Amino acid sequence: MEKLKELIQNLKKLDYKNMYSNDFFLTWEKTDEELKAVFTVADILRQMRENNISPRIFDSGLAISLFRDNSTRTRFSFASACNLLGLEVQDLDEGKSQIAHGETVRETANMISFMADVIGIRDDMFIGKGNKYMHKVSESVQEGYKAGILGQRPTLVSLQCDIDHPTQCMADLLHLIHYFGGAQNLKGKKLAMTWAYSPSYGKPLSVPQGIIGLMTRMGMEVTLAHPEGYDVLPEVENVARKNAEISGGKFIKTNSMKEAFENADIVYPKSWAPFAAMEKRTNLYGEGKFEEIEVLEKELLNQNANYKDWECTEEMMKLTKDSKALYMHCLPADITGVSCKQGEVAASVFDRYREELYKQAGYKPYIVASMIFLSKVKDPVKTLTEIIDSKPPRFLAK
Amino acid sequence: MEKLKELIQNLKKLDYKNMYSNDFFLTWEKTDEELKAVFTVADILRQMRENNISPRIFDSGLAISLFRDNSTRTRFSFASACNLLGLEVQDLDEGKSQIAHGETVRETANMISFMADVIGIRDDMFIGKGNKYMHKVSESVQEGYKAGILGQRPTLVSLQCDIDHPTQCMADLLHLIHYFGGAQNLKGKKLAMTWAYSPSYGKPLSVPQGIIGLMTRMGMEVTLAHPEGYDVLPEVENVARKNAEISGGKFIKTNSMKEAFENADIVYPKSWAPFAAMEKRTNLYGEGKFEEIEVLEKELLNQNANYKDWECTEEMMKLTKDSKALYMHCLPADITGVSCKQGEVAASVFDRYREELYKQAGYKPYIVASMIFLSKVKDPVKTLTEIIDSKPPRFLAK
Amino acid sequence: MEKLKELIQNLKKLDYKNMYSNDFFLTWEKTDEELKAVFTVADILRQMRENNISPRIFDSGLAISLFRDNSTRTRFSFASACNLLGLEVQDLDEGKSQIAHGETVRETANMISFMADVIGIRDDMFIGKGNKYMHKVSESVQEGYKAGILGQRPTLVSLQCDIDHPTQCMADLLHLIHYFGGAQNLKGKKLAMTWAYSPSYGKPLSVPQGIIGLMTRMGMEVTLAHPEGYDVLPEVENVARKNAEISGGKFIKTNSMKEAFENADIVYPKSWAPFAAMEKRTNLYGEGKFEEIEVLEKELLNQNANYKDWECTEEMMKLTKDSKALYMHCLPADITGVSCKQGEVAASVFDRYREELYKQAGYKPYIVASMIFLSKVKDPVKTLTEIIDSKPPRFLAK
Repeated sequence: MEKLKELIQNLKKLDYKNMYSNDFFLTWEKTDEELKAVFTVADILRQMRENNISPRIFDSGLAISLFRDNSTRTRFSFASACNLLGLEVQDLDEGKSQIAHGETVRETANMISFMADVIGIRDDMFIGKGNKYMHKVSESVQEGYKAGILGQRPTLVSLQCDIDHPTQCMADLLHLIHYFGGAQNLKGKKLAMTWAYSPSYGKPLSVPQGIIGLMTRMGMEVTLAHPEGYDVLPEVENVARKNAEISGGKFIKTNSMKEAFENADIVYPKSWAPFAAMEKRTNLYGEGKFEEIEVLEKELLNQNANYKDWECTEEMMKLTKDSKALYMHCLPADITGVSCKQGEVAASVFDRYREELYKQAGYKPYIVASMIFLSKVKDPVKTLTEIIDSKPPRFLAK
Repeated sequence: MEKLKELIQNLKKLDYKNMYSNDFFLTWEKTDEELKAVFTVADILRQMRENNISPRIFDSGLAISLFRDNSTRTRFSFASACNLLGLEVQDLDEGKSQIAHGETVRETANMISFMADVIGIRDDMFIGKGNKYMHKVSESVQEGYKAGILGQRPTLVSLQCDIDHPTQCMADLLHLIHYFGGAQNLKGKKLAMTWAYSPSYGKPLSVPQGIIGLMTRMGMEVTLAHPEGYDVLPEVENVARKNAEISGGKFIKTNSMKEAFENADIVYPKSWAPFAAMEKRTNLYGEGKFEEIEVLEKELLNQNANYKDWECTEEMMKLTKDSKALYMHCLPADITGVSCKQGEVAASVFDRYREELYKQAGYKPYIVASMIFLSKVKDPVKTLTEIIDSKPPRFLAK
Repeated sequence: MEKLKELIQNLKKLDYKNMYSNDFFLTWEKTDEELKAVFTVADILRQMRENNISPRIFDSGLAISLFRDNSTRTRFSFASACNLLGLEVQDLDEGKSQIAHGETVRETANMISFMADVIGIRDDMFIGKGNKYMHKVSESVQEGYKAGILGQRPTLVSLQCDIDHPTQCMADLLHLIHYFGGAQNLKGKKLAMTWAYSPSYGKPLSVPQGIIGLMTRMGMEVTLAHPEGYDVLPEVENVARKNAEISGGKFIKTNSMKEAFENADIVYPKSWAPFAAMEKRTNLYGEGKFEEIEVLEKELLNQNANYKDWECTEEMMKLTKDSKALYMHCLPADITGVSCKQGEVAASVFDRYREELYKQAGYKPYIVASMIFLSKVKDPVKTLTEIIDSKPPRFLAK
């Protein structure tokens, strides 16, 4: 309970008033203090649950989820977060064919939101589309709210778009903050966000992009490593470059995995698809050229196969700081000899970091809950203090 | 809060005691006062939510939903209504093959209802089947309740059958009541329920049938217009005729869209399939004659194509009262140049009425909640008064 | 309310402390007093609900369900039980391909459980797999809890494995206890668990196995009857034999349905597949030999067809005690002339016992809720007494 009071004191010092009644799309659209508020409230909500204090602020209310890509982890994180706050998740199982017209987005968004407090969307597959779609949804329900159609303004939380994966990357960073004993200890740390080989293809770019866009704000030295041709969105590289400048960190690019691992404190080896290829694929989908997509997929798999040595092996780990950098992954990882013949990471490396990986993932429900909390509650310090003082039990028989 | 007290006073004057522990199948099975009670409680529930008063009457409890046709709007309306009252929706995802035997209906209905307070069913595709099926479900759970198998009697709300679409039509009428400033102002108004062209086929008849069966009770002049051969159920036309007589309104049939639009205060242009063809299709399904169904579908599409001029264009709208009749639709509409090449309504007409259309749809969750409320609560005035007096917040941090 | 006090008094006398923070896999892993505690709490929860007292102990919390086989009854029982206690069910819709690696089980189990209080699994199709899988899940989340990854230890309730179907058999037994006026009256009763013909094939063995493993503990004379070659797991027969010895009952095997029905107080005729064939099928699946599986299925159907006379007809019922043994089935039954041409039971027999069958099924939600309650609540007597004293209403407008 002392810890809780301290966290509330920290929250008091931050300016995050613009988060109220607002959406969460990209981490770099938020100020440093706003991100700190998200971390602080996430820690508070976790402490409350661990002390059997229910942070339920809704007696009833809906949270709409829309997953345009398969999801287990994020789906359960969103469900957990909403349940914790008292919202019931209703999944919009949208046929892919129904989304062709802007009109339909506007209409559907309003039709499902008459009693919705939050909308969570995952739309990460098509370059140039996901983030735009989310904005369209948000604008549509704002219009609906202003016109008196909706009784409340549903706020939007991006559960992964084509540009960023904010709930993942924020959970990753909160893990780092706790692992290294505070945000101040991240200054100067070396993080290697590197490409890794996978026998599957076409994995979204939002994690590497989100990581370089977020971690460069912490004064870290962030290296983005990938084989030639596996570039991420140039706009996001610019964000990373600018962030590093401001924070006193560094943003380095290289085509050598070894260079990135050299003396790294943290490594994040993960497969992704080249953004240029994904853009081409998006266009082919738009044109309905499915045969050409198949050709493209084969090309990409062949291209991948040239870089099978981009694996996080024990040898690679030895290059890192004292041979024991923190290994990170958003999961599920392609583990050599376990989930595939050859993949992103050696089984022994993965196993050694399993608990840390699970802890990393465990922050996500609280990050999501925190984002929702800050977008819905006008005076978070007041509300949290009141709840903590009255101690409503989450589990009545503890 | 003054508004709330006034609505409660109105409710006190109405006789709706037969709604308690009862189902809602067809609007014309309910008395005028019962329908007024539904509207009044819908308005009360909306006012409560807007004043952040939670009308939650269930601490726990299930609402079963069974959708035998795709649904987004009605699904979310039912989910919103149940959530508002404290019921958790459990969807029965019934394989179409499992429903062949009456035995199975009786059994399944009881098996899922041990803790169910409400059952919502949409079954609108097959003429002569949907409403009957709902009755079978209701009878089965009543038997189960009487035999001590079920701890409570689950009441049934039709979410659209082959005859009526009561939650839609009641939402439509509540929209009209508020749009025209009171039910008394609907007397003498002209409403055109007209067929409209759509490139798809086989849309249910329950909306036009529900509209003529309900609106004729309000003293309105209701015109049903459709091309020759697109008749609705004769039984429902009889209902409309009788209702008009009693209410001092009119029920007129015509094969001219123009005639219907002439001087109309309200227009509701919407595609539907001829009931005779739907009946034929239902029989072919029963006999497993799928090739003949395909032939029938082509015939119907060809037939439709003869009536492409049945479109709600700007020119048509100019025929209406002061050129500005209220345009209505249950959504989604087939909008010319937007969702199809040629459809039910011109894009400019649809756009001008978009906000009104969304408001129209926005009444549905409250209509559903009101129907549930009146079927479960023995003394609605007492219960509502108690809740309003104690003001339990829906959102604790407002 | 007197009944409730009496039940609480009964509960006080029992030793069931090992159920706290524990799983429920097989009934024969539990002591007699533990099973009695499950029955007593199930009766208490039912009495509470019937007296409109809400036994909700969770303000928020998730219950994960994983159904690896289609399910309506068990799905709704689990949903009802969780809802009654305040848990929201989140279904893990696991693709069958994702479960190949032990690694993945461990990871998935933890990833979905950050805020999960209970996990319910149905995995009954493959001999030698289901129960093992459940143990793997349980071990995984226990490790996660110990490592501080999970904020609570999710307990597991088997919703049917390859060995036992504990929620079904416990509901069956609670039905017998109430039907015969107390557990003491079951002593010496004759129960015939017999195979019956069905035109489908490959039904799980968990019900006959669960029944002989459980009912032999009650001092009953339990006969297991099936055609030659339709054996159940030998390990479970051993359990039954041992149980009968201890309880003073009998466990008899026969290949004659008539012999089993002779003078029986209770008959439970039900189709199942020979365990040896199911084991073979499991192996063929593992080896991906799908053509051989088809051959096997045909063989099994042909084999079944030799035993069409294994039907619970009126003639067979005349063999039972006073011609009126209690007919039981876990439902749905294959009813001759109703759900199939020839099946497990004659329509007239089934009809006569319909209400009793539905009552039998009606115990399941309370058995599930009781198992969850006893695994989560440290001092059930104290918690139940407190709730009963404060009488929180389930339905606020009763």
